[in-house]
Amino acid sequence: MDYRTIGYAVEAGIATVTLSRPEKLNAFSYAMIDEVLDALDRIDADDDVRAAIFTGAGRAFSAGTDISDGTAVFTRDDERDALRNPDGSFAYGAEAARDGGGLIALRLFRCLKPVIAAINGPAVGIGATITLAMDIRLASEEAGIGFVFARRGIVPEAASAYFLPRIVGISQALDWCYSGKLVPAGEARAAGLVKAVHAPDELLPAARAIAREIADRTAPVAIALIRQMLWRGLGYDHPMEAHRVDSRGILARGCSADVAEGVAAFLEKRPARFADRVSTDMPDFFPWWSEPSYR
Amino acid sequence: MDYRTIGYAVEAGIATVTLSRPEKLNAFSYAMIDEVLDALDRIDADDDVRAAIFTGAGRAFSAGTDISDGTAVFTRDDERDALRNPDGSFAYGAEAARDGGGLIALRLFRCLKPVIAAINGPAVGIGATITLAMDIRLASEEAGIGFVFARRGIVPEAASAYFLPRIVGISQALDWCYSGKLVPAGEARAAGLVKAVHAPDELLPAARAIAREIADRTAPVAIALIRQMLWRGLGYDHPMEAHRVDSRGILARGCSADVAEGVAAFLEKRPARFADRVSTDMPDFFPWWSEPSYR
Amino acid sequence: MDYRTIGYAVEAGIATVTLSRPEKLNAFSYAMIDEVLDALDRIDADDDVRAAIFTGAGRAFSAGTDISDGTAVFTRDDERDALRNPDGSFAYGAEAARDGGGLIALRLFRCLKPVIAAINGPAVGIGATITLAMDIRLASEEAGIGFVFARRGIVPEAASAYFLPRIVGISQALDWCYSGKLVPAGEARAAGLVKAVHAPDELLPAARAIAREIADRTAPVAIALIRQMLWRGLGYDHPMEAHRVDSRGILARGCSADVAEGVAAFLEKRPARFADRVSTDMPDFFPWWSEPSYR
Repeated sequence: MDYRTIGYAVEAGIATVTLSRPEKLNAFSYAMIDEVLDALDRIDADDDVRAAIFTGAGRAFSAGTDISDGTAVFTRDDERDALRNPDGSFAYGAEAARDGGGLIALRLFRCLKPVIAAINGPAVGIGATITLAMDIRLASEEAGIGFVFARRGIVPEAASAYFLPRIVGISQALDWCYSGKLVPAGEARAAGLVKAVHAPDELLPAARAIAREIADRTAPVAIALIRQMLWRGLGYDHPMEAHRVDSRGILARGCSADVAEGVAAFLEKRPARFADRVSTDMPDFFPWWSEPSYR
Repeated sequence: MDYRTIGYAVEAGIATVTLSRPEKLNAFSYAMIDEVLDALDRIDADDDVRAAIFTGAGRAFSAGTDISDGTAVFTRDDERDALRNPDGSFAYGAEAARDGGGLIALRLFRCLKPVIAAINGPAVGIGATITLAMDIRLASEEAGIGFVFARRGIVPEAASAYFLPRIVGISQALDWCYSGKLVPAGEARAAGLVKAVHAPDELLPAARAIAREIADRTAPVAIALIRQMLWRGLGYDHPMEAHRVDSRGILARGCSADVAEGVAAFLEKRPARFADRVSTDMPDFFPWWSEPSYR
Repeated sequence: MDYRTIGYAVEAGIATVTLSRPEKLNAFSYAMIDEVLDALDRIDADDDVRAAIFTGAGRAFSAGTDISDGTAVFTRDDERDALRNPDGSFAYGAEAARDGGGLIALRLFRCLKPVIAAINGPAVGIGATITLAMDIRLASEEAGIGFVFARRGIVPEAASAYFLPRIVGISQALDWCYSGKLVPAGEARAAGLVKAVHAPDELLPAARAIAREIADRTAPVAIALIRQMLWRGLGYDHPMEAHRVDSRGILARGCSADVAEGVAAFLEKRPARFADRVSTDMPDFFPWWSEPSYR
């Protein structure tokens, strides 16, 4: 797949995805949604990618859904008409009626590599909400994050009602969504939405430094399991659900070549060289969940 | 319904409910529980109310359950006797056995308007716990918040075991409930229980400023959906549950007059005038949940 | 049970459990897991214990699983072989395949007394994760907390995928688990993992002061119910689940001798003397849950 709306580059184990419609402040079109989904598949399929960074071209991260032609484009007109039932209601459970931001968020949710958002400028609407399913957010001093839905008359999307209250707490989540204001980077930092605020030209280096440490020091299979264990664990009702997965993980991975190497390297005070790969060496109990279907 | 224990006033789109038994430090009687429940129904039913503020008359927010006559009044004596089974156990699943604070918390949980607690003084027991189901808490410098249950021999109520660990984290929640101390406003702020601490005479103006911005800038139907999406989303097991609601919301609201107006106003750099009303224009998929029954 | 790997002492209502293999930096052996489980049973069974403190002997809290002999000991060799199916997979649901850290975490989860971790030095791997199911963590300035799994090639355990994201948020949890670094006490404090950082010789006194206040001022049955209500409440999907328990608690405890005493003592401005005991006076609806089985 050749990309028209994003950049995709892999260097030294780190994939960088750049939202790239700078003349539209990287506003999301349907093509961009499809290309981001494709890029996430590439990231997961490529053992040479140990971590991914998302950023924006030019001065914005993403201005949100492209509304520059002045019509409401949250659903394509012809799609929407096709989804309308005779009684005026909609065929809500149809695949064609799925929110595009949610497709990205759910794809991120099952990703096997760490994903870092490097928010270089304004991130608004879907430009803000898709970063919630990423693992770590860094912001430029010039960034602002806007959950602007209530000011446009629309609702939050990209499963942000799941992610946002868990990241910043329900009161802060409601406060920002009620207000609809552009949240400055410093306020986002204080609330725990972003890990750190950087000068503009130090943002990508900071994101790469986090990715670098992951790539250089950790076991790819362990990282993939950690990502899924923690994100899934966030939704469990009881710690027993985590214990079942832990027990399988300790049993299966405890006798892996990776662990033998990890322990030996630790005792010998040298860097470890992990041989197991995500494409071929995930444990046989993976995945331990069945993904719920859309309806 | 004429109120004897609370004040109720609506001004410029903002309802103010004042707990008002100042001679008892606004301690809760059964009448006050009933009147608060009625006020919440009025708030939801009145399209002219865009947000609500709860505060207390006099120097306290609320001293909790009224224990001033020296007997344990957590359950009325006659009610309690009627609920006792022949074997000495209680008819726990009976409607008459429901905790009054929980009735308020669950009513708040399904509220369609933003609710702000303006905690003007001591908030203790049920006076503290019912604010947890409100969206945003502001505190006066003279406020203190007491989860005093363990010092009285009783248990926390008003579904606070659901709300408190999600708002301040499980460790802070346990710490305060184990201690039973009156938490100073500053400590409550540091823990994220309250959004901000204000001088006494700046508390209500601060609450009104938040409500004012909601009333002036946002779409009522979007706000009602946001409130329910985020609070419900906090209890989901998987982001797919949010995605189902988002997709319905984007589809149904994306072609609404409100969104057309919101987008046009944004592009024309003018304030939006949203016409849709909570009483008549909620989308056909609302409510998307079935409320669990008490048992 | 005589302990070989831990110390156990009760003084003035406070149990202190000391991980005690100082020559191994208190690394966990199978014996230590068994002894910690036994100590937790003693703590719950002894009405004279009102709160418990966990700490480490010597300069470490615990270095994690004992890997000092250079082999991977996450599962005993003979156990692991016995658990292997003919097709090479493992008998994952077998009791013998349960993660030892998870056994401790789940036992802590159903504990009836407040448990405080006094982290006196490095806490790594299982030495870090078991503290997540304790109620309050205090750290010495010399402490460091390491979720080092990814650097060894293994996965997090002790149900930490349940606990850690709920305590410090999903982004911080992922960040620390991706990095595998030793988190300094100050960073752990800033993230909410520990309540406070103390000079080394002030750590145990600080832990004892918290336990002391619980022992002196609160009702044992109320504390046991609070611990279970809040930890269970953290996993609920809806506040109605908490309301059912609250209502039972208010009804049954509202007419208890403890509440009569607690209210009288409050009105008379004197310390309360609570007579009800955890061993004999828990309400008839306790436990209100059925524990999920391992499989």
